[in-house]
Amino acid sequence: MRTRAAVALEAGKPLEIMEVELEGPKAGEVLVEIKATGLCHTDEFTRSGADPEGLFPCILGHEGAGVVLEVGEGVTTLKPGDHVIPLYTPECRECASCLSGKTNLCTAIRNTQGQGLMPDGTTRFKMLDGTPIYHYMGCSTFANHTVMPEIALAKVREDAPFDKICYIGCGVTTGIGAVINTAGVEIGSTAAVFGLGGIGLNVIQGLRMAGCDMIIGVDLNDDKAEMAKKFGMTHFVNPSKVENTVAEIVNLTKRGIDQIGGVDYSFDATGNVKVMRDALECSHRGWGVSVIIGVAPAGAEISTRPFQLVTGRVWKGTAFGGAKGRTDVPKFVDWYMDGKIEIDPMITHKLTLDEINHGFDLMHEGKSIRAVVEY
Amino acid sequence: MRTRAAVALEAGKPLEIMEVELEGPKAGEVLVEIKATGLCHTDEFTRSGADPEGLFPCILGHEGAGVVLEVGEGVTTLKPGDHVIPLYTPECRECASCLSGKTNLCTAIRNTQGQGLMPDGTTRFKMLDGTPIYHYMGCSTFANHTVMPEIALAKVREDAPFDKICYIGCGVTTGIGAVINTAGVEIGSTAAVFGLGGIGLNVIQGLRMAGCDMIIGVDLNDDKAEMAKKFGMTHFVNPSKVENTVAEIVNLTKRGIDQIGGVDYSFDATGNVKVMRDALECSHRGWGVSVIIGVAPAGAEISTRPFQLVTGRVWKGTAFGGAKGRTDVPKFVDWYMDGKIEIDPMITHKLTLDEINHGFDLMHEGKSIRAVVEY
Ligand SMILES: [Zn+2]
Ligand SMILES: [Zn+2]
Ligand SMILES: [Zn+2]
Ligand SMILES: [Zn+2]
Repeated sequence: MRTRAAVALEAGKPLEIMEVELEGPKAGEVLVEIKATGLCHTDEFTRSGADPEGLFPCILGHEGAGVVLEVGEGVTTLKPGDHVIPLYTPECRECASCLSGKTNLCTAIRNTQGQGLMPDGTTRFKMLDGTPIYHYMGCSTFANHTVMPEIALAKVREDAPFDKICYIGCGVTTGIGAVINTAGVEIGSTAAVFGLGGIGLNVIQGLRMAGCDMIIGVDLNDDKAEMAKKFGMTHFVNPSKVENTVAEIVNLTKRGIDQIGGVDYSFDATGNVKVMRDALECSHRGWGVSVIIGVAPAGAEISTRPFQLVTGRVWKGTAFGGAKGRTDVPKFVDWYMDGKIEIDPMITHKLTLDEINHGFDLMHEGKSIRAVVEY
Repeated sequence: MRTRAAVALEAGKPLEIMEVELEGPKAGEVLVEIKATGLCHTDEFTRSGADPEGLFPCILGHEGAGVVLEVGEGVTTLKPGDHVIPLYTPECRECASCLSGKTNLCTAIRNTQGQGLMPDGTTRFKMLDGTPIYHYMGCSTFANHTVMPEIALAKVREDAPFDKICYIGCGVTTGIGAVINTAGVEIGSTAAVFGLGGIGLNVIQGLRMAGCDMIIGVDLNDDKAEMAKKFGMTHFVNPSKVENTVAEIVNLTKRGIDQIGGVDYSFDATGNVKVMRDALECSHRGWGVSVIIGVAPAGAEISTRPFQLVTGRVWKGTAFGGAKGRTDVPKFVDWYMDGKIEIDPMITHKLTLDEINHGFDLMHEGKSIRAVVEY
C-alpha cells in the first residue's frame, strides 16, 4: 500500500512529506493506522544529525497512537480495530530481561531495531523508487501507517483520545515511570527535578501522585515555574540566580532533628552531564537516589567524587520510565481517563503532517511543551 | 591514667611508641582496654599524609577489640568486663539517619569525630607535656587503652578471640556487609570483585555465603588467586593478561537464552577510579549493581557515559558495609564463632605494639592480608 509520511532524507535537513510504499505485516507483525503522534526531543536529536547512530533515509517518530488495520500470521493478542500505542521498548515476556522482573529493557528485537529494521532484517517502508527507508526506534509514527511487531504494541481502551494518549508513548510514561518504577518514591519524600520541559513536568506530576512533601523544580527559565506549579511543584530554584544550586537545595530541605539537608530523590531531565552531577550531589547523604532521564550528547560523561556514593547516594538511570509497555501503558491510559494524571495542558500545539517541521521550530524556540501531529 | 600508644606525630613519619596521658570517661563515655588491633589501609592513608583531613598528633587505629574497664555517668548498656568492638560508625538509634532505617551513617557524633575530638569537643589523650592528641575515627585503637562514646561500642560474646574478631571492626564487616546490606545479593547471582586484598577476600566470602553461582576475582597479581579460591572465588581475571577486562567478564558471564553477558553485582575494592568504572561497566545491562568500597585518592573522580545508567546499571557505594555496628557486629562475631565466616587465614601477621611500623612495611610489600597488634 501507499501512505503519506514525513521522511528524514539526510541528517540536518527538514523532513520531506511524501508518499511512500508500505509492505503489509509479516508473521508476528501488525499494520497500524497512526492517528496522532507527538514530536519528541529524541526525534530531533536524530533528525539534526547529533545522534551518532542515526540512519537515513528514515521515518522518525516514536510517540504515537492509532488503530490496528491488519495482523500478520501468528498474531494472537491484537485484531483489526484495536486501539494501540506503539512501544519503542517492546515487551516480549519471554526474553531473559522480561523474565528477570528486574528491568523493562526487553532484548527480543533489540539488534534489528537498533539497525532500523524489522525483526526479519528488512524494512517495510520504501521510497517510490524502491529505496528502502529505515524504521526509527521500531515505531516510525511520522507515517500515517506503519508496521510494527506485535510485542511492541500496547492495546489500550477505545474511548481514549489519540491526540492526548499518544504522549503516553514516550514523555508521560518516561517522567511518571521514573518516579514510580525507577526511583520508587514513597509518601512524604522530598524531591528535586532538574529541567522543567515536558519530561520534567511529568516527573513532577508523578511526584505529586507519589505523595511528596516537597517538589523542587530547577530551571534556568523563570517562565517555566508557572506551569510546573500547576503540576505540583512546591519550590522553584533558578540556578542563574543562586550562588550554588546544590547548596540552595540542601538548605531548602533541612528538616528534622539533625538538620541535614538534601532531597530524598532527584531527577535529571536536561541531558546535561553537569546538571546530572548537581542532581546527584543535592541528594541526601545516606539514602538519596538520583535518576538520570535525559539523553546526553554523544561522548559526554558524568563524573563525581566516589565519596558521594560511599556516603550513601545511589546513581541510576531510566529508559521509558522503567515501564513494561504492554503491561503499564494501558494502566497509564486508564489513569489519564480517570483524571489521576493530566496531559491536556501539556499538548500546547496541534499540527498537520504537512506542518511537522514547524513543530521542530517550536521545540527549539521553547514555545511548545508538546506539539502533536494529527493525521 | 597513663597508657602506651603508637602516636603519629607528623604526616609521613613512622609512628612513635610512647607513654601518653588518658583522661577517664566523661558522661556517656567508656574506658576500654584494647586487646588487639588490625592495621588497615585507612590508617596508612592518614599516616602517610595522603588524607587531606588528617590531624596530627593523633593516635590512629580503628579496627580493635577489647574489654570495658570503666563507664562514665549515664552509661547503661555496658559495664566493666564486657567485651567490645570499637565502631568508627556509631549507632545512636536516635538520629534521623539511624531512625530512617535506610542507612548506617549515624550522625550523632559526626562533627566532633571528624575533628578528632570526643563529643564534648575535647580530647582524652595528651602527651606527657600536656599537648592534646587527636582521636582517630572515634577509635584510636593504637593505644592500649582508649575512651569511646557508648554508642560507638558493640558488645560481643566473651568467648571470641580478640586477635581475630578485631578484624570485624573494619575489614570483615566492610566486605561482607557490602554484599549483604548494600548490594543485597541473591542466591544464584554472578559477581565480580576487583582487588583481592583483605576487603576483596571478605567480599568473596560474603558472596559465597549469599549463594552466588559465579564469583570472578580480578587482580593484577596472579599470586592473589590461590587464597581467593579458598574463600570462594570461582574464576580469575588478570587485567594485565587480557585485552579488555570488561569484555572478558562480559564473555565469561554469557548465560541463558539471550547470551547477554555482565555480572549481576560488582564490587570495587581497589580505590582506583578507573577500576571503579570497569566494575560498573562489566555489570549487566538492565539490572547490574556496582558497589564502590575502596577509598579513592583525594580529588579523584569517577566517570562514565550516562548511557551506562540509563540502560539499567546502578552505581552505589558503601561505608562499613552498610552495617549498623551495635546491631550487626555481634552477629558477625557469632558467624565467625559458628564457622560461617573465616577470619583466621586472613590474619597473616602478629606484632607487638613496638613492631607496629613493620606492619605498614608488610602492607606496602603486599606480604600481609592483615597484620594484627596484640597488646
Ligand atoms: Zn521520546
Ligand atoms: Zn523481552
Ligand atoms: Zn579500616
Ligand atoms: Zn544515629
